[in-house]
Amino acid sequence: MSAPRLGSIESGGTKFVCLVGSAPDRIEAETRFPTGEPGPTLARAIAFFQETAASTGPLDAVGIASFGPLELRPGHAKFGHLAATPKPGWSGVDVAGPIAAALGVPVGINTDVNGAALGEGRWGAAKGLDTYVYLTVGTGIGGGAVIGGKVVNGLVHTEMGHLSVPRVAGDAFPGSCPFHGDCWEGMAGGEAMGARWGVPAEELTGDALREALRLEAAYLAAGLRNIIYTTAPQRIVIGGGVAVLPGLFPLLRAELAAVLGGYPGLPEHAAEDFVVPARLGRLAGPAGGLVLADSAAAAAAAAAARPRPDDGPSGGPDA
Amino acid sequence: MSAPRLGSIESGGTKFVCLVGSAPDRIEAETRFPTGEPGPTLARAIAFFQETAASTGPLDAVGIASFGPLELRPGHAKFGHLAATPKPGWSGVDVAGPIAAALGVPVGINTDVNGAALGEGRWGAAKGLDTYVYLTVGTGIGGGAVIGGKVVNGLVHTEMGHLSVPRVAGDAFPGSCPFHGDCWEGMAGGEAMGARWGVPAEELTGDALREALRLEAAYLAAGLRNIIYTTAPQRIVIGGGVAVLPGLFPLLRAELAAVLGGYPGLPEHAAEDFVVPARLGRLAGPAGGLVLADSAAAAAAAAAARPRPDDGPSGGPDA
Repeated sequence: MSAPRLGSIESGGTKFVCLVGSAPDRIEAETRFPTGEPGPTLARAIAFFQETAASTGPLDAVGIASFGPLELRPGHAKFGHLAATPKPGWSGVDVAGPIAAALGVPVGINTDVNGAALGEGRWGAAKGLDTYVYLTVGTGIGGGAVIGGKVVNGLVHTEMGHLSVPRVAGDAFPGSCPFHGDCWEGMAGGEAMGARWGVPAEELTGDALREALRLEAAYLAAGLRNIIYTTAPQRIVIGGGVAVLPGLFPLLRAELAAVLGGYPGLPEHAAEDFVVPARLGRLAGPAGGLVLADSAAAAAAAAAARPRPDDGPSGGPDA
Repeated sequence: MSAPRLGSIESGGTKFVCLVGSAPDRIEAETRFPTGEPGPTLARAIAFFQETAASTGPLDAVGIASFGPLELRPGHAKFGHLAATPKPGWSGVDVAGPIAAALGVPVGINTDVNGAALGEGRWGAAKGLDTYVYLTVGTGIGGGAVIGGKVVNGLVHTEMGHLSVPRVAGDAFPGSCPFHGDCWEGMAGGEAMGARWGVPAEELTGDALREALRLEAAYLAAGLRNIIYTTAPQRIVIGGGVAVLPGLFPLLRAELAAVLGGYPGLPEHAAEDFVVPARLGRLAGPAGGLVLADSAAAAAAAAAARPRPDDGPSGGPDA
């Protein structure tokens, strides 16, 4: 069987990345453009896939890793729609529907961070694992949990950036989250770091950088502890702009050991490969779109192979 | 097909409950005895099942909902063994192995709280849901997450009692957890309540009870927030001795709404049926043992029906 021809969209608050391929290292076409009004932006993505298909052959499926919040409950009337979002014009917009209608192929959709989690699992730092967490620490903090090989989407997708974390002693920063003030993202996201230190994190140097890293590692470790005790990951993969600050990971591992307090005492939690940097970089989201497309194609194929209800009650293995 | 004949063990730190049946309301034999030395205790459970099988017919499988910490990674050399536990004599003990060897039937095992989660999902307050959390707030706090119909067991089982929660303003209680001091269990478990107020929680009355409930609701809500943002449950079911304190649930729902801060703004999180009391009471754990037994029987049947590797690489639907 030849490799599938998959379309991927990373739909971000500031830009769209669209590509066609089968893996991060097998991309045959790619485009990126700013996120504008919903209609023209989605139309531009559709046009890219139509043009690519016309010149090189039809697509099998498209996957979308989108900014949120998204309605993702299967069968829900608003499945694939955005919920209320600060991005002007996008609240309530159907993201998946127009793509599926225009292209006539199966379409999968999930959040950008869940997409990145799937991408890192298939090709990146969580390859081979079935239970892990992907965290992005950039302007904000977002996390996606893959448990037993599947992304956690229960009542809603996860919202790990809004975990509560204990305030580090002596830290008077009020927090930057409009909902919670001093939640995890409000204390440790890139926006919070910029507000706390008066300059963007990546511009810090010397003693200021050292102090910022110390505090950042403490807050990140506190949140990781909560993630570990609730989802029991085999590994935690961290991407995003803050994650690449020099020297952060060794500090973070030391702080994590301290806050776990020897409980449950697993050597795996102290290993170098437990908390690791993301590997796919800017391709994590688009790679996630490819995984979502692949899953959508597989689900559609399985549905097509399944006997319809009027074929009788015992017509197949799923009946 | 007749109902399966399943054995269940709830293996607790103070007592063992063993039963044979197919559901909480279809129990044909039951025994309970104090947890003593591992050898004689497990032998007593085995004898109960052997005697019941001899008089009323063979068992299909046995499920064990056990105190922990347990090694539950499939294929691990110590699968079904206890890890280091404060219970004298039980550290490292193989709980599942002797039962399986003596009875010659499939044996399933998980933690007591994960077992209770499965029981509440099959017959209790989480019936019909596939993504939910069961929490017990008794002497300590323990939580089990069922996600997509499966109990979360990643690197290890979950340890929700040890979540970090922000200290409530003005609360000077240092916390009772030997590992973390002021973790969730250390601030809000029954042992912590007794230490904080000088009497067991169930003996509090009047103003003291009111103040204790206010603080308890605040701490429980803080932990629930972390669980909600990491596992996205459709419902949270709470059992245990502290959960039955009069008036706790309405306070807890109000505190939860406050700490979620309108984020992500789902009406489901504010509904009366989102945080609910457990329904199976003392039968939750034994019911979980029945679910584990049922799953072990199904897994064994599936394995028996599967062609062996030397039957060829494409011999069945899983190949």
